[in-house]
Amino acid sequence: MGDFMEDVIRLSHGSGGIETLQLIMDITRDVTLRKVKGGTGLDELDDSALIPLGEEKFLAITVDSYTVNPIFFPGGDIGKLAASGTINDLVVMGAKPLAVLDAIVVEEGFSKRDLYRVLSSFKEVLKKEGVALIGGDFKVMPKGSLDKIVISTVGVGVVDKDDVMLDSGLKEGDKVIVSGTIGDHGAVILALQLGIDVSNLKSDCEPLTKVMERVISIGGVHAAKDPTRGGLSMALHEMADKSKVTIVIDEAKIPIKEEVRACCEMLGVDPLSLACEGRVVLGVDKEVADKVVDSLHDLGYEDATIIGEVKSVEPGLVLAKSLVGGLKILEPPLGEVVPRIC
Amino acid sequence: MGDFMEDVIRLSHGSGGIETLQLIMDITRDVTLRKVKGGTGLDELDDSALIPLGEEKFLAITVDSYTVNPIFFPGGDIGKLAASGTINDLVVMGAKPLAVLDAIVVEEGFSKRDLYRVLSSFKEVLKKEGVALIGGDFKVMPKGSLDKIVISTVGVGVVDKDDVMLDSGLKEGDKVIVSGTIGDHGAVILALQLGIDVSNLKSDCEPLTKVMERVISIGGVHAAKDPTRGGLSMALHEMADKSKVTIVIDEAKIPIKEEVRACCEMLGVDPLSLACEGRVVLGVDKEVADKVVDSLHDLGYEDATIIGEVKSVEPGLVLAKSLVGGLKILEPPLGEVVPRIC
Repeated sequence: MGDFMEDVIRLSHGSGGIETLQLIMDITRDVTLRKVKGGTGLDELDDSALIPLGEEKFLAITVDSYTVNPIFFPGGDIGKLAASGTINDLVVMGAKPLAVLDAIVVEEGFSKRDLYRVLSSFKEVLKKEGVALIGGDFKVMPKGSLDKIVISTVGVGVVDKDDVMLDSGLKEGDKVIVSGTIGDHGAVILALQLGIDVSNLKSDCEPLTKVMERVISIGGVHAAKDPTRGGLSMALHEMADKSKVTIVIDEAKIPIKEEVRACCEMLGVDPLSLACEGRVVLGVDKEVADKVVDSLHDLGYEDATIIGEVKSVEPGLVLAKSLVGGLKILEPPLGEVVPRIC
Repeated sequence: MGDFMEDVIRLSHGSGGIETLQLIMDITRDVTLRKVKGGTGLDELDDSALIPLGEEKFLAITVDSYTVNPIFFPGGDIGKLAASGTINDLVVMGAKPLAVLDAIVVEEGFSKRDLYRVLSSFKEVLKKEGVALIGGDFKVMPKGSLDKIVISTVGVGVVDKDDVMLDSGLKEGDKVIVSGTIGDHGAVILALQLGIDVSNLKSDCEPLTKVMERVISIGGVHAAKDPTRGGLSMALHEMADKSKVTIVIDEAKIPIKEEVRACCEMLGVDPLSLACEGRVVLGVDKEVADKVVDSLHDLGYEDATIIGEVKSVEPGLVLAKSLVGGLKILEPPLGEVVPRIC
C-alpha cells in the first residue's frame, strides 16, 4: 500500500482505456449503495444510470465533464460537444432525452465572446433536439488555476423498461455495426494539439438521436454504445466484457477516412483508440443487420456498415481479422492516447 | 455590443452575488425550453430543478461544480463539501435524496493519496445519508492546466408535490430563521487562502437532512434555502425577490461566532456575504416559529434563532435593523468576495 499511495494520477488514468476503468473500479469498490433499487448504476457502468419510474419506465441519468483542448475545432466546439455527448449517453440506452443541466467553470480572464459562442453552440443543440435546459452552476477560478473552461453536463431522459439497451445485451450471432467513420473527432483534436494542419479533418461531433430513433424503430437492436474516449476498441471491449461474449471484427471493414488514417499513421496512434463523438456501435440481430445498415444509409450515414459479429468463444475477448489475414487479439487501449480529447 | 464582447470573465462573475446572477440571466435569456412541462427550471433558478413524476411527485435534480481551495480545511474537504452541498440543494426543496453522480477532473500529477482521501470523505457522507452513488466520470488534465481537482456532483431526489418548498414561498408575517452561525465556512477558506491562522475557525460543512426532516415534520415551513456562495445576504435577497416580499432582519440577532466576526473585521469582509455549507435559512409561519427554533435546539443546533420577519413593503427588498439602531437597506453582495470558496 505504501508504494501505491505515493503514486500520482497520470494522463493515462484519464484516457478512457484500461487505466481509467481500473481507477474507477478501485475508487468505487467500497461503495455499498451502487444503484437505486430496481435500477442500474456502478456495477453496470453503462452510458447512463437508470432509476425506476413506477412499473414501466426508467429515468436515465448521466454526467460528464468536458475538458477538450482546443475548445474550438473543425466540426464543433466544447459547447456542441458537451450537449451532443450528453444526449448521446441517453439515446444509446434507448432513452428519450428530456432535460439537461450544466455546471460551467471558467478561468478568470476568459473571453466573454468565447463563452457566449460556446454556450450558443450548446443551446443550439438543445433547441434542435427539443431538450430543456433546467438548471446549472457557474464558477470562476483565478487566472492560472484552470486552462480556459470545463463544462460538466447532466442529461436526464426517460425510457420504457422494454426498450432499455445495456452494454451487456449482445447475443451470440449478433452483427456489430458502426454508424459511420471511426476516429474523426480524436484525430482532429490530436492534430490541433500538435499544431499539425487539420484542413482535411473534421470532428464527427453530433447528437445520435435520429440514428437511434431509426434503428430502434426497426427492432432487433440488442446493445448500443457511443465510442468516445478509448474509441471503438474500448467500446467493443466493454460490450464484450459485460455481455460475456467474444466480438470478432474484420479490420478491413471498419470505415476510416483516408485523412484520418494518414494522420494516425504519421502520429503513430491507433484510430481504433481515438474518440468518436457522433458515432454508435450497435449489436443487432443478424436477421435485421442489413436492414439497419440500409436505413442508416437512407438517413445519410453512408459509411454505416457491418464490421463484425458476436461469438461465444470466450467472455470479454475481442478478436480482429487483420488486414494481412489471420485473427489477432485486439488489445484494449492502454496509456495516454490523447489528453483532453473530450 | 462591441465593448461588451471584448470583455472578460472576472472573479466577481463567480462570487455567487449580483454579477453571477446577471451573467446567468444573460446566458440563459434566449433558452426557450426552460423547464420540463409541469416542473421548474431556469425561471425559478431554485436550489434544484423539478421534473414531474406522475400526478403526485417531483424528481428534484441539481448539479454543482466544487472548486474549493484549499481542498482540505478544518471541518472538511472538497469531497465532504461536494456530497453535503449536493444533498443540501435537494433537502432545502423538501426532497428526499436518492442518488448522486460525480464527474471528477484532476490535474496530472495529483496525489493518489489525496484523491482517495477526498473520495473517502465523499463516500462517507453518502453512506451515512443512505444515498446511492450510481455513476460518474473521471478525467485528467495535463499538469499546469488545472489546479488540483474539480468535482461536479449531481443530486437526484424525490418530493411529494405538496411538500415542495420554493424560494418564492415566503408569506407576509413569516418569521425568518437561521439554523446556526453564519459565515463559518467562508471565513476559514478565506483565512487559509491568505495564510492566516485558522486554529479557531472551522467550516460548518455538513448535510442538512436531519435539520430539514425535523422542521418539515413540524409544518408551516414556507421556504428554505442554504446560504452558500453569496452568503446569508444573497440568500435573503433571492428569497425576497422571488417571493415578492420585503425581509426585515435584525442584525443583532444573526448568530456569528466571535472568531468569525474577528476574522471578517480583520480582513474587511462582510460575514453576511460569506458562504455557509451546513446552514439553512427558513421562512416559517409565525405561529410555529418558536417551535421550529426549539426543535433545532433539541437537535443540537443551539445557535438556531429567529433573525427577522417577512413584510410587504416592497418586493425584493431586504432591510436590516442595524446594530446601532435604525433601518438600512441590506445590499446584495457585489464584487469578488472569496474566490474558490466552494
